[in-house]
Amino acid sequence: MSSPADTETFPAATPAAAHLFTTVLSHGPLTRLEMARRAGLSPAAVTKAVRPLIASGYLAEDADAGAEAEVRPALGRPATLVRVDGGRALFIGVKLTGDEIIGVLTDLCCRILLARRVPLADREPDAVLDATTDLVRELLTEADGYGVRVAGLGIAVSGDVDRAEGVVRYSPFLDWHDVPLAALVAAGTGLPVTVDNDVRALTVAEQWFGAGVGLSDFAVVTVGAGIGCGLVVHGRVVAGAHGVAGEIGHVTVEADGPPCHCGNRGCLEAVASDGAILARIRETGGTEVTGTAEAVERARQGDTGAREAYARAGNAIGRGIATVVNLFGPARVIISGEGLAAYDLFAEQIREAFQAAAFGSAAQCDVRTRPLPFEEWARGAAATAIQSFITAPN
Amino acid sequence: MSSPADTETFPAATPAAAHLFTTVLSHGPLTRLEMARRAGLSPAAVTKAVRPLIASGYLAEDADAGAEAEVRPALGRPATLVRVDGGRALFIGVKLTGDEIIGVLTDLCCRILLARRVPLADREPDAVLDATTDLVRELLTEADGYGVRVAGLGIAVSGDVDRAEGVVRYSPFLDWHDVPLAALVAAGTGLPVTVDNDVRALTVAEQWFGAGVGLSDFAVVTVGAGIGCGLVVHGRVVAGAHGVAGEIGHVTVEADGPPCHCGNRGCLEAVASDGAILARIRETGGTEVTGTAEAVERARQGDTGAREAYARAGNAIGRGIATVVNLFGPARVIISGEGLAAYDLFAEQIREAFQAAAFGSAAQCDVRTRPLPFEEWARGAAATAIQSFITAPN
Repeated sequence: MSSPADTETFPAATPAAAHLFTTVLSHGPLTRLEMARRAGLSPAAVTKAVRPLIASGYLAEDADAGAEAEVRPALGRPATLVRVDGGRALFIGVKLTGDEIIGVLTDLCCRILLARRVPLADREPDAVLDATTDLVRELLTEADGYGVRVAGLGIAVSGDVDRAEGVVRYSPFLDWHDVPLAALVAAGTGLPVTVDNDVRALTVAEQWFGAGVGLSDFAVVTVGAGIGCGLVVHGRVVAGAHGVAGEIGHVTVEADGPPCHCGNRGCLEAVASDGAILARIRETGGTEVTGTAEAVERARQGDTGAREAYARAGNAIGRGIATVVNLFGPARVIISGEGLAAYDLFAEQIREAFQAAAFGSAAQCDVRTRPLPFEEWARGAAATAIQSFITAPN
Repeated sequence: MSSPADTETFPAATPAAAHLFTTVLSHGPLTRLEMARRAGLSPAAVTKAVRPLIASGYLAEDADAGAEAEVRPALGRPATLVRVDGGRALFIGVKLTGDEIIGVLTDLCCRILLARRVPLADREPDAVLDATTDLVRELLTEADGYGVRVAGLGIAVSGDVDRAEGVVRYSPFLDWHDVPLAALVAAGTGLPVTVDNDVRALTVAEQWFGAGVGLSDFAVVTVGAGIGCGLVVHGRVVAGAHGVAGEIGHVTVEADGPPCHCGNRGCLEAVASDGAILARIRETGGTEVTGTAEAVERARQGDTGAREAYARAGNAIGRGIATVVNLFGPARVIISGEGLAAYDLFAEQIREAFQAAAFGSAAQCDVRTRPLPFEEWARGAAATAIQSFITAPN
C-alpha cells in the first residue's frame, strides 16, 4: 500500500478526518459507504479524507483479501473494507492508583500487547514520577522488539485533571495539588504525554471498544476507593468547560450526611466510597475494621452494622445514578470499579433507589455492571494518547 | 440570486449542510472561510454544501452589497459574506402554559414578526387543541400578508415530551398523559408540527440567538411554576435516549423533604417551585396566601415564614445548579423563568449554595440571570420548527 514515513505526525487535516479514523478504529473494518453514513459525510468527502491516511499507512484497504474482507453486493463489484493498521504505531497507557502503577503497551488499535504492575510505596509527586518513568522506560525497551516507535503516552489519575494543560489540579488519593505531570513525565521519557482523569480515560476505552460501542450517550459510574463518572454525550466524552465533569461523587445525597474531603457534607463519595463504608461500620459498631476485605466478609456473614453500611451506600449510589440519568438521559449506565467485588451487598439497594428516583421514562435506562481490571483503565489511558496523536495539529 | 421554488423542502443533503446553515443563522453573515473554520470542514466542502442553499434562496451572498457586507483583505479580492435570507420562509411558535397560550410568527431567521396571547380557560386536551388551532389560524391569516408560506409550527410544553413521536407523555401543569399533540394540531392546521419540552425549546433560542451563542456547553435553568433545565453539550441540545433530560426539578435536594407530584420526596421542584414555596408559607405560618404575588410581597415586607421559604428554595436551587455544573461542567448557566420576579428574595442563597457545592474549578462557571418573557419561549418553539424544517429528509 505504502511505506510508513519515519515521522510520527498523523496526517488528518480536519476534525472530520480524525473522527472518521476513530469510527474505523471502533467499528471497522468498514466500507467507505458505511463510513460516510456513520459520519454524516458524502462518500466523496470520505474518499478525500481517507486518502492521506491510507497513503501514510495508518489505514489499510483490503482490496484483494478474499471473501472475509469483502462485502459482496448482489450486483456490481465488491466493496473494499477500510481498517486501521494496528502495527503502524505503539502507545503506552498508565493508570495511577494510591497503591499501584499499572502500565500497558498497546498497538494503534489499542490492543494490549504487554501489561505491568508495580507497587507504589510513596505518594509524593517525586516518588510517583520516578516510579512512572521507570515503568515507562521498561515498556519502551520492550517496545523496541516490535520495530515501531511509541508515538504517545497516556496517564490516568483520579481527581480534578486539566487535560489541556497536563496538570493534576487535585487528586484526593495521591493528595496532590497542581502537579504539572505531563511536562514532568515528558521530560523524563521523551514522549508526548496526555494526562486525563482516570474515569474519563476508562470511558474512552468503553466508547471505542467496550459496552459503549455504538451508543452516542452513555455513562460509566465507578465505585470503590472513590465514586466517579464518565459521560459520553452526542458521541464525545464530556470534559467540562473548566476541566471538571462527571463529579457524581460530589452530588449531595444526604444534606446532613458525613463530611467529605471536598469540604461539603453528604456527598455521594462521603457515604458510598470504600473508606466511607469502613468509617460507618466503625462508627455504628464501635469496633475496628482492618479494611474493605474484612468489611465485605463481615457483611456477608450477616453483621448488621456492616450490612447497613453497604445498604446505605447502595441507596446513595442508586440515587446518584438517577440524578445522572434524569439530567442527560443516557441509553446505558455501566457500573464498574473495584467496588464491584462487594456488589452482592448493595445491588438491590442500587436498583431500587435508581428505579424510585428515575423520572418517567428515564427508568428505562439500561443500568448494568461490568467488572474491569485496572489494565483496562490503563488501556483507557493509552486510548487518550491515541486521541491526542490523531487530533494533534500538523 | 434565484427565485424560490414553490416547494417548502429544504435542500440540505447532509447533516453537515444543515449544521452549516445553523451556523450562518446564529453567527452570520460569515465568509465561506469562517464557515469552514467553525464547522471543521474544508472550504471545498463548504462551497459544495452551500451551493444548493444559495440556488434555492435560503442563503444569500452579498457579493455587491458595498463595504458593510464585505470583508476587505489587505490584498486580493474582497471575501463575500453568506447570510440567511430571513424572508424565504415563515414559522409559527407556540408556548403553552397552564393559563395561557403564547404564539409568535417569525421569519426564517427566527425574528418575531407578530406575537399574540390568549388565555386558557380549560386544560383538557380538546379545549387546548381548539384554542391552539384558533391561534395558529389567526397567525396564518396574518402571514398571508407576507406573501411567503408558513413552513412549520413548533409547540413548547412543559413536562416529558417525546419530540420524535410528537407526543406529550406527561405534563404536570396541564395534567396530560400521552397526548399525540403533533398529529392533532397537524390535522387541524395543515402544518408540519414539532412538539418539544418548553425548556429545551427555550434553550435552542438561547443557543442560536441568546446568551448561549458561541458556547459549546451551557445550561438554562428555569424557575417558577416548575424548575426546568436545558443542556447544550458539544454544541447540541441534550434530548435524552428515552426522551427525558434536564430534569433538574427531580434531583433530590432533601432526602426527607416534601412529597413531589412525581411520586418521590424532596425533589428540587417540591421545595423550590412557586407552588412549593406557597405550601411552605401556609404550613409554617398557618395562614392562607392567595398566590405568588402575595407571597413575594409578604417576604419583601419581612414576614419571617415567607422569607424562610424563599431562602430554603434558593438554597435548593443553588445545590441543584451545582449538581448540573459538577456533572457537565458548562461554561455558563443562564437562570430564567417567571420566578426571576422574586429573585431578590433568594439570589444570595442560590449563589452561596452553588459556591459551596461546586467541586473545585467548577465554581468558576459563569452563573447569570436573564429575564425572558414567554414570547421568547414561543420563539424557541419556532426555532424547533426551523430545526425540523432544515433537517427533514428530502
